[in-house]
Amino acid sequence: MKSALSFLMAARRSEIAGLQRLSLTSELVGAIGRLVHALQRERGLSNLYLGSQGQQWAAERAAQVALSQGLQAEVERAFDQLDTDAARSGHRARLFGRIAYALQGLSALPRLRERVASRQWSTDRTVAAYARLIQALLAVVFEAADSAWDPGISRHLVAFLNFLQGKEFAGQERATGSALFAAGRADADSQQRLLHFIESQERCIQVCTDLASPAIGTLWQEAQRPEHLMPLERMRRILCTTTPGGTLDAGQSQPWFDACTRRIDAMKTVEDALAAELQGLCQLRLEATARELSELERVAGRSADRPQSDGAPDFFDDGADPGLPAMAHAGNGFGAPMDQSILELVRDQARRLQRMGDELDTVRASLNERKTVERAKGLLMAHRHLSEDEAHKTMRQMAMNQNKRLIDVAEAVLAMADVLPVRSR
Amino acid sequence: MKSALSFLMAARRSEIAGLQRLSLTSELVGAIGRLVHALQRERGLSNLYLGSQGQQWAAERAAQVALSQGLQAEVERAFDQLDTDAARSGHRARLFGRIAYALQGLSALPRLRERVASRQWSTDRTVAAYARLIQALLAVVFEAADSAWDPGISRHLVAFLNFLQGKEFAGQERATGSALFAAGRADADSQQRLLHFIESQERCIQVCTDLASPAIGTLWQEAQRPEHLMPLERMRRILCTTTPGGTLDAGQSQPWFDACTRRIDAMKTVEDALAAELQGLCQLRLEATARELSELERVAGRSADRPQSDGAPDFFDDGADPGLPAMAHAGNGFGAPMDQSILELVRDQARRLQRMGDELDTVRASLNERKTVERAKGLLMAHRHLSEDEAHKTMRQMAMNQNKRLIDVAEAVLAMADVLPVRSR
Repeated sequence: MKSALSFLMAARRSEIAGLQRLSLTSELVGAIGRLVHALQRERGLSNLYLGSQGQQWAAERAAQVALSQGLQAEVERAFDQLDTDAARSGHRARLFGRIAYALQGLSALPRLRERVASRQWSTDRTVAAYARLIQALLAVVFEAADSAWDPGISRHLVAFLNFLQGKEFAGQERATGSALFAAGRADADSQQRLLHFIESQERCIQVCTDLASPAIGTLWQEAQRPEHLMPLERMRRILCTTTPGGTLDAGQSQPWFDACTRRIDAMKTVEDALAAELQGLCQLRLEATARELSELERVAGRSADRPQSDGAPDFFDDGADPGLPAMAHAGNGFGAPMDQSILELVRDQARRLQRMGDELDTVRASLNERKTVERAKGLLMAHRHLSEDEAHKTMRQMAMNQNKRLIDVAEAVLAMADVLPVRSR
Repeated sequence: MKSALSFLMAARRSEIAGLQRLSLTSELVGAIGRLVHALQRERGLSNLYLGSQGQQWAAERAAQVALSQGLQAEVERAFDQLDTDAARSGHRARLFGRIAYALQGLSALPRLRERVASRQWSTDRTVAAYARLIQALLAVVFEAADSAWDPGISRHLVAFLNFLQGKEFAGQERATGSALFAAGRADADSQQRLLHFIESQERCIQVCTDLASPAIGTLWQEAQRPEHLMPLERMRRILCTTTPGGTLDAGQSQPWFDACTRRIDAMKTVEDALAAELQGLCQLRLEATARELSELERVAGRSADRPQSDGAPDFFDDGADPGLPAMAHAGNGFGAPMDQSILELVRDQARRLQRMGDELDTVRASLNERKTVERAKGLLMAHRHLSEDEAHKTMRQMAMNQNKRLIDVAEAVLAMADVLPVRSR
């Protein structure tokens, strides 16, 4: 029969195997961040190219495509490194499902690029296509964050996801603004979208700095240099307040693109720091858990020789105070693990897992906003026979019209679920 | 490079491996139900024995102990069957931690029995000890329910857990009532506890029948036979309304025990049906997922020969309507999987996983009540330096005094978290 101690050790070994998987996942997530960054640049350049009727930006765009391709290969390598052997991989069906979806997007990317090169697609359609691919990649990060069982790592993954999502809003802001300037004419719909992107990116960054370490918050503050922000804010004002139909200076296209890019590149340094912190955290947790395991193994080796004495407190005694951290008992260094009964070890573990579960619930709550939006979108798709993009646009339009946040609209949609008419086709 | 299709297949294989683990877990959970049933009987007989000053029930108790020992061996076998190999077991640290804790309780059981046999411990202390062990076993079921990722199976596990918990309240009612009758004297504290046990078991059963299949609800209704319930309700009234200090007929001890036992045994048939349904569900899900996997494997075999045509809709086209269940396209039986593009398969999978995630969130919400209580208990333990039992008693006492449910008290405790004084020792 396996002993309590053997299950304690199995629990730690299971944690270690899980942490090794999380470490690989963190590497993957970092690679996705880098690819998304490149795709955002590629989108911006594609729009400049389309906006100039193919007269400019062709070379810059081609160079960026080459960079994206290199980073795509890295992401695909990271996908390949994931252990998909069912017997060993734990339950990762959702992560694999998201990856399958993202891979579909990546494999369609060459055709999208041809359509841009030959100017078959409009800027709007191109922005939407890149945005869809980037969302598919971010969904992999979302799944990684949602399925991480370690609260510290999950917290970091959620912070990272929010940062990437915020940066994507900044990227969409850049693309939309570039297209507006290049077209030389203000229009109300694009202006609304710009405002939405500005507000959304600020909210995402806020969630990220709330969850990440103080060092990240400091880095973010430093990345916001006034001499870079000032020209951006001036152009934002021009873009958003020019009367619809009014003329915009097409010559501002490049300064706008450059100002946005400076800001996004500065964000990239924060992103890299977040990715590095995540990797470091996985390493620390792995080392700590390995130490705890070898401690347990030492206890197991010794207790095999010595049966527990009859006078020792057992499961049904209230003697040991569960309110005290058990390591306090083991603090004298000499033979300490022997003095700490296996019962205490088991109780410790139970308390620790309870605490981890509580923390995890708290961290996951910050993912629920996204889940609520997805659920509302699914409801609209089913009830109104909309495509995913249409459902998203509908909700975004509702949010703009009512001057509400997307999450508020999503909650309203879900609250109306029972009364939503099912439209027959 | 692994293709999207290979990740789709990996997702299904991961599901199958996970379902096999869930199937083993379901067997374990069934075995725990049987052991808990035996321990409840053993507790009841132990109290009759103690209440009679050791004059009666010794033989019945000894026979029951032998039965419990056999069922304990079964549970330990089920523990041993769990794959604790870290590389293969997925992340199950919490489950293993709970098992380690339960095993500590089981290994202390012989000493508890000696203490009862030699009448060292009071009935109250004995009830509390058995209740603690049973809670440790139920915590394993809780963890199994909380970590099940399949919404249907999770829903059944939560129903099963609530039924076991409800039956445990019925068992505690039996033990408390037995001790009261045997002592021959009513007391206010025991009467309060009786009322608490009656109310709590009804709430648990309600949650169970809400979540389980209609067949279970019907079975539960049939198990509630009026000719059994009537005498029980009459004795409940006598126990709960006799003025504290007043005399109770010690001769009613056995009729009370028998009436409660008849009811609990009738509950046992519902429990067995729940366990059988759970096993059957695992089997069904396994078969369905295996079929889906072999379908994918067939598609993979064929699509290797035939590259996707340039005209087919790709990731960036809105052509395929995600609002329609994709199996509608594949309904003609002949060559259907070929007509359904891999993109559609990927979108299907994404939608299915999304739906499963939503359902799972809903089911898990019913576990949150228990989590809230545990969290409040942990808070009281930390802030007031209470043991777990003391914290639980404190909250139960608050609930009784304020005529509130335990969950309401727990929420109130958590709401006061910031203002709770930290008492120095």
